[in-house]
Amino acid sequence: MASNSFGTHFRITTWGESHGLAVGCVLDGCPPGIPISDDEINQVLLQRAPGRAFVSERKEEDRVEILSGLFDGMTTGAPILLLIKNKDHDSSKYEAMKALYRPGHANFTYLQKYGVFDHRGGGRASARETAARVAAGAIAKKFLKALGIEIVGYIQAIGTVTATSIDFTHRDKSPIFCPDIAAEASMLDLITKVKELGDSVGGVVACQVAGVMAGLGDPMYDKIQARLAYAMLSLPAAKGFEIGEGYHAACMHGSEHNDGFIQKEGKTQAATNHAGGVLGGITTGEPIFFTVAFKPTSSIFKTQKTVDFEGNEVDFSLPAGSRHDPCVAIRAVPVVEAMCALVLMDAVLHNQTLMPCK
Amino acid sequence: MASNSFGTHFRITTWGESHGLAVGCVLDGCPPGIPISDDEINQVLLQRAPGRAFVSERKEEDRVEILSGLFDGMTTGAPILLLIKNKDHDSSKYEAMKALYRPGHANFTYLQKYGVFDHRGGGRASARETAARVAAGAIAKKFLKALGIEIVGYIQAIGTVTATSIDFTHRDKSPIFCPDIAAEASMLDLITKVKELGDSVGGVVACQVAGVMAGLGDPMYDKIQARLAYAMLSLPAAKGFEIGEGYHAACMHGSEHNDGFIQKEGKTQAATNHAGGVLGGITTGEPIFFTVAFKPTSSIFKTQKTVDFEGNEVDFSLPAGSRHDPCVAIRAVPVVEAMCALVLMDAVLHNQTLMPCK
Amino acid sequence: MASNSFGTHFRITTWGESHGLAVGCVLDGCPPGIPISDDEINQVLLQRAPGRAFVSERKEEDRVEILSGLFDGMTTGAPILLLIKNKDHDSSKYEAMKALYRPGHANFTYLQKYGVFDHRGGGRASARETAARVAAGAIAKKFLKALGIEIVGYIQAIGTVTATSIDFTHRDKSPIFCPDIAAEASMLDLITKVKELGDSVGGVVACQVAGVMAGLGDPMYDKIQARLAYAMLSLPAAKGFEIGEGYHAACMHGSEHNDGFIQKEGKTQAATNHAGGVLGGITTGEPIFFTVAFKPTSSIFKTQKTVDFEGNEVDFSLPAGSRHDPCVAIRAVPVVEAMCALVLMDAVLHNQTLMPCK
Amino acid sequence: MASNSFGTHFRITTWGESHGLAVGCVLDGCPPGIPISDDEINQVLLQRAPGRAFVSERKEEDRVEILSGLFDGMTTGAPILLLIKNKDHDSSKYEAMKALYRPGHANFTYLQKYGVFDHRGGGRASARETAARVAAGAIAKKFLKALGIEIVGYIQAIGTVTATSIDFTHRDKSPIFCPDIAAEASMLDLITKVKELGDSVGGVVACQVAGVMAGLGDPMYDKIQARLAYAMLSLPAAKGFEIGEGYHAACMHGSEHNDGFIQKEGKTQAATNHAGGVLGGITTGEPIFFTVAFKPTSSIFKTQKTVDFEGNEVDFSLPAGSRHDPCVAIRAVPVVEAMCALVLMDAVLHNQTLMPCK
Repeated sequence: MASNSFGTHFRITTWGESHGLAVGCVLDGCPPGIPISDDEINQVLLQRAPGRAFVSERKEEDRVEILSGLFDGMTTGAPILLLIKNKDHDSSKYEAMKALYRPGHANFTYLQKYGVFDHRGGGRASARETAARVAAGAIAKKFLKALGIEIVGYIQAIGTVTATSIDFTHRDKSPIFCPDIAAEASMLDLITKVKELGDSVGGVVACQVAGVMAGLGDPMYDKIQARLAYAMLSLPAAKGFEIGEGYHAACMHGSEHNDGFIQKEGKTQAATNHAGGVLGGITTGEPIFFTVAFKPTSSIFKTQKTVDFEGNEVDFSLPAGSRHDPCVAIRAVPVVEAMCALVLMDAVLHNQTLMPCK
Repeated sequence: MASNSFGTHFRITTWGESHGLAVGCVLDGCPPGIPISDDEINQVLLQRAPGRAFVSERKEEDRVEILSGLFDGMTTGAPILLLIKNKDHDSSKYEAMKALYRPGHANFTYLQKYGVFDHRGGGRASARETAARVAAGAIAKKFLKALGIEIVGYIQAIGTVTATSIDFTHRDKSPIFCPDIAAEASMLDLITKVKELGDSVGGVVACQVAGVMAGLGDPMYDKIQARLAYAMLSLPAAKGFEIGEGYHAACMHGSEHNDGFIQKEGKTQAATNHAGGVLGGITTGEPIFFTVAFKPTSSIFKTQKTVDFEGNEVDFSLPAGSRHDPCVAIRAVPVVEAMCALVLMDAVLHNQTLMPCK
Repeated sequence: MASNSFGTHFRITTWGESHGLAVGCVLDGCPPGIPISDDEINQVLLQRAPGRAFVSERKEEDRVEILSGLFDGMTTGAPILLLIKNKDHDSSKYEAMKALYRPGHANFTYLQKYGVFDHRGGGRASARETAARVAAGAIAKKFLKALGIEIVGYIQAIGTVTATSIDFTHRDKSPIFCPDIAAEASMLDLITKVKELGDSVGGVVACQVAGVMAGLGDPMYDKIQARLAYAMLSLPAAKGFEIGEGYHAACMHGSEHNDGFIQKEGKTQAATNHAGGVLGGITTGEPIFFTVAFKPTSSIFKTQKTVDFEGNEVDFSLPAGSRHDPCVAIRAVPVVEAMCALVLMDAVLHNQTLMPCK
Repeated sequence: MASNSFGTHFRITTWGESHGLAVGCVLDGCPPGIPISDDEINQVLLQRAPGRAFVSERKEEDRVEILSGLFDGMTTGAPILLLIKNKDHDSSKYEAMKALYRPGHANFTYLQKYGVFDHRGGGRASARETAARVAAGAIAKKFLKALGIEIVGYIQAIGTVTATSIDFTHRDKSPIFCPDIAAEASMLDLITKVKELGDSVGGVVACQVAGVMAGLGDPMYDKIQARLAYAMLSLPAAKGFEIGEGYHAACMHGSEHNDGFIQKEGKTQAATNHAGGVLGGITTGEPIFFTVAFKPTSSIFKTQKTVDFEGNEVDFSLPAGSRHDPCVAIRAVPVVEAMCALVLMDAVLHNQTLMPCK
C-alpha cells in the first residue's frame, strides 16, 4: 500500500501487527545532534500503555528498543529504528470471531480490499500501531520543546460530560487526562457504568500548543490545520476535527470571529484567538487549539447482530475476558499529542527550506 | 514551498494569483482515453463562479482553456494544463489596505513566513485559487461517474439555520445549494440581513457520495476520512470536519454506534450507516457522508480595530464597492465536491496497484 | 502518469506537446525574495533554441512568459508558471508517418503503453519539453550563482572526435559549445558530412561544477551522483552517465583512484579529484565532474526499413524539409546544465532541513 | 535526511549501521497474496554474503527475520519488516582510524554534512546496508518471475580483463559471477595479485532482463533508464551507468543505431536491440541491457598519505586483519539485480494506475 508513512521531512513508516513479534517504526529525516535514549521514549510510551486504570487490561510493557541511528547517545542523521516487542498476546480469544463480520470493526473492509485479514488481535488494524507513533512523537516533542513549543492534550468530553474548567496541573495527575476535577468525577462514573453494561462510550480530546512561532504551515494544501486534520483523522476511531472555534464558527458573524491585531510589547499580535492560532493555513504565533472526536470503542461485550462469512445471521459479543477499552478517547490523548508533534516538527523543518542560503 | 500539489496518482499543482494574469493547474496522472472538453469543465466552473446571486459580485467569466494533454478530444496520459484567465481585476481597492494587518486575513501570516505579500486581490491567498481545483475536479467527477460514483454537496447550515429535510431535486435549483425549501427561505433572509449590516456569517457544507465501491482508502495514514479531512481543511475558511456521526459519535454508546452487518440481495452490507461509509479507513460500500464547517468571511464592511505595519492602531473596513461574499460556505459547495472527487479518484487509482499483475 | 515532476523541494512539473498551444512548467518551492525577469530566462533559453547553426532549423522564438509567482519582480514563495508558446508548428509533415513505427523513436512504446500517440511533432515525446527544463533551470542557476556555484557544460565528443584541451573561453564562443578549438573544426566537418548523408551522429556532453560547497547530497538513495544520473538519463537520447573517472575507474587500482587528503590554507581538502567531487554520495567541495552520452538522433533522412501499424514492411525516411538535428548532443548542453542546476538547488534546500532550528 | 527510501509504490526504507545491532528495511506497498518465507530470502542473501571466496572475510550469517506483514505465509498488503542481525562485529580495528580522513572514504563528507560519523565498521556508510536491499529485492524478484521476468547480473570486467563470451550456465557456477570461463581465470589471477599487493581493483557489472513486457517506465522523468541509473548510482562505489550501446552510441550514426521494426509471429518487434530494450523511456519488450562501473575498493592495506582531524599529515593503511574486498564489483552483482528488481516492480505496479477502472 506504500501508505504506512507519515511526514515529509521528519518521516515515520510504521509496521507490525498486534499479535505479531513486534510493532515499530523507522524514523527518517531526524536532524543530527539530538540526544535521545530508550528511557526518555519509554517515559512517554507509558502514558498510552494499556494496563492503566480505566483502560484496556492488556499487560504490555511497551518498551522501545532503538536499533539504529544513534552514536554516543546522539542522533546522527541516519534512520532510527524503533522496535517494541509484543509480549502478552493470546490470540485464542480471536478464534471465535475469525469468520464473522465484527460490527464497527475493520475486518469487513480489509477483506474487501485485500482478500485477507490477520484476525489475531486485529492484526494491523489494532490501535497497538499507535505505540510506534507515540515513540517517534517523543523524539519530535523533545526537539520542539527545545524551541519552546509545548503540546498538551487532554480529555474535553466523555459522552455528554464535558470539562468546563481547564487546570493543566490537575490534568497531569488525572488517570484520564482530565483538566477539570469536577467533570472528572462524573466521567469516571460514566466509564464505570458503561463498563458494567459491557458497552463503550465516545469522547473528545482537545489539544493546545503553546510557544509556537508564527509562520508554520504552508498556505495551500499543507495548511497547518489541514495537516493536523489529516493526522488526527488517521487515528483509529477518530470521527471529527475542529480548529479554533470549529463548528461554532459556522454560527458566528465575521465581526465576532475576526481577531483584530494589536501592538503589544513591541510586537504585533492577535487581540483574541478565535482562529485557533492559524490564519491562511499559517500559524500566527498564538496558541494552536484543536479538538478530535472519537467514536465509542467498537469492541463491546453486549450482544450485537451481524452475519458470518457465509452470510448467516449470528449474535456476536466479545468473549468474556477479552481486553477492552470502555472509552478509546482516553488512551488517544498521548497519541493526539504525538501526531501533533510530528506535524509541527515537519513544518519546522520545512520552513528551513525557505530561508536564504548561506 | 513545493506544497501546491494535491494527490498522489491523480495529482494537481495549482498556481496563480487573484489579480495576476491567470490561475490554473497542471493535472498529472490522468489515465489515457477519457474524453474531455473545455465546455464540460466550464459547466462545472459556473457553479462556483462569482456573480451568482447572494455571492460576490466579481464578474469573472471563469473560462478554462486546456493547453495540453489532449489528442482528438481524449486524454493521452500526458499532463493537462488548465488555464483560467483573470479578466476583471481592479487592484486599486487594495491600495488602501496594503500596509495594515487585516483581521481574520492571511496577510499577517504570509508576511511572517515569506516577508512579502501580494496584496492585490489577496494574491495567492485568494479563494480564486479554488477555481483551479474545481476545473481539475470536473475531470475526476466525470471519471468517477462512469464508475457509478455520484458526489453531491449541499448547504446544511448557514449561521444557526439548518436544513432538516434533504431534497436533492430542490438543491439543484437552489441559488444556495440548499436541499430544504423551508430552511432555504430563512437562510436567504439571514444572508440578506447580514449583508445589509456589512457583516458576514459562517455555514456548514455537507457532502454525500453514493455508488462508491467497498475497499477505497488505506488503513493507516491514508484512511479515506483522513484524506478527506486533509482536503477539506485545505479550503479557505474551513474550520471543522466530521465523517458519519462526527462529534455526535462522542456522545454515543458502542451498542448504538456500531453498524451491524446483514445479508441483502446476496451481498453482505451494513444494516445502518453511523460510520458514514468507512470502517478502519476503508470504504464499506455504503454512502460516504461528511460535513465541513466554514467560518464567516473575514472581509467585511463593518469597522474593525487593527494595527498598521508600523504598529499604529487603525480603524479598518473594506472599501465601499469591494467584492464581498456574505457567506463563503455557499460558493464552497462545488469546491468541496471537487476536492472529494480528487480524493476518491486518487484512491481508485491507488487500489489498482494492489491487484495481481498480468 | 504523475511522473512529469522533477525535484523534491525545488520542484518542476512540465507539460505541453511539441505542436500544441504551448509548453511550460510550474515551479513550486522556489524560496521568496529572488529577483527574476522574463528577459533573464530568455537569455538562457536562447542557448538551446533551435535555429542556431548546426542544429534543427525550427524557427521557434522560445520566449517565456511568467504567469504567476512574482511580485515587484521578486519571487514570493508561490508557484511560478512558465509558459512558452508554440508558434512555428506545421504538423503536415507528420501525416506521412502517423501510421508506421518510426525506428529509434518513441511512438511504438507510447502506443504500447497508452494506446494513443500524438504524432504531431512527436507530441509529448519531443525534445521541445526540455525548453521548460531550461527555463526553470535558469532560476536555479541564478540562485546557485549567488552562492558561488558555477555550472559549465560542454561538448566533449562528437562521434569519435574528442576535445582534448579545455578552454572555457573558447567554449563560450563556439557554435557547438566545444572548449577545444582544434577539435571543434573536426567536429564541424563531421557534422556537415553526416548532414549531407542525411544521417546523424552521437556525442558526449561533459559538465563541471565549480564552487560547490561540501556536504550536498544524501548518503543513501539520494547520493548526489544518483540524482545527477537520474536527471541526465531522463533526457531524450541519453544512454550513459559517468561521474569522476567513470568507467575508467573500473580499470584502476585503489591506490591510484583514492584521493588522499591534505591541509591547504587551513582547510582539509582532497589532493586529487578522481572521485569527481563526491564521496559516499556527498560533495567534497572539489569540482563535480560528470559526462553524459547521447545516441545519434533517431530522425534521419536516410531510408530505413520498418513496418506500419498493420505489420506491413515499409521503407521510411524523414520527409524532405523536415526539421532535423544531425547531432542532438549539441543542443543538450544547456539542458544538461539546467538539470544539474535543478539537482543542486534541491540538494542545497534539502540540507537546510538538517540544521539546528532557531 | 528522509532519503533512506527507494521506490514509489513498492517502497523500501532501509536502516541500520554496520556495527549496530542490526540492519534491515521496511517494505511498504507489497501487494497481498504473495507467498514468502525467510528461507527464500536467505537463499538470495547468500549470494552477496561476505565470507565467499575472493570477497571480504567477514563471517556474517546474514539471516533475515520477517517481523511483520505476513499471515499464513502470505503477504497481506501490510508493511514487511525485514531484520538482519549483526553478529560478527569487532569495532576495535576502527579505533585507529577514527580521527583521520580515510582516502576515498565517506567519513570526510559525513563529517562535513552531519558533524558526526559512526566510524565503527563505516556505520551507515558501510556496504552492509545493501543486504537490506537484496532482501527486499528477493521479494520483488519472486513477483516478477511469476510475470516471466528474469533478471541476470554478471561480471563483465575486472580491471582490464573483460568477459567476451556470455554463458549464463557458467555464470551460475562462477565464484565471481563471470559468464566467460576463459576470462574468469584471468580475473581470478588479477584479484589474487591485487590482494597480495594489499591493493584493490575496479570492475563492471552487466545486467540483462529477459521476458519484460513492453510499456514499463514513464516517458518523462521516470524513464526506465533514468530510474535504473538512479538505482545503480545509489550503490556504494558505482561511478558509471550505460543502457544499450551506452557510450558507444556516441560514436554511432543514426542509421546504424536505430532499431528497425519487423513483424514476427504476428507481433511487431524491434529487429535489433541497440537501444537496450527502451525507447523514449519505455520498455519495448526486447531484453533490457545495462552496465554499472564500480571503482576499486577504497579500503586497502597499502600505505596512503592523508591528514588527521587536526590537519597533520599521516601515513594510513588498513590495519592487518581487517576485512577487505579486493574487488567490490563482485559482491555488487546480486545488489545490482536487487535494485533492478525494485525498479521494475515499481514500474509494473505503476502501470496499473493507467488502466481503465472497473
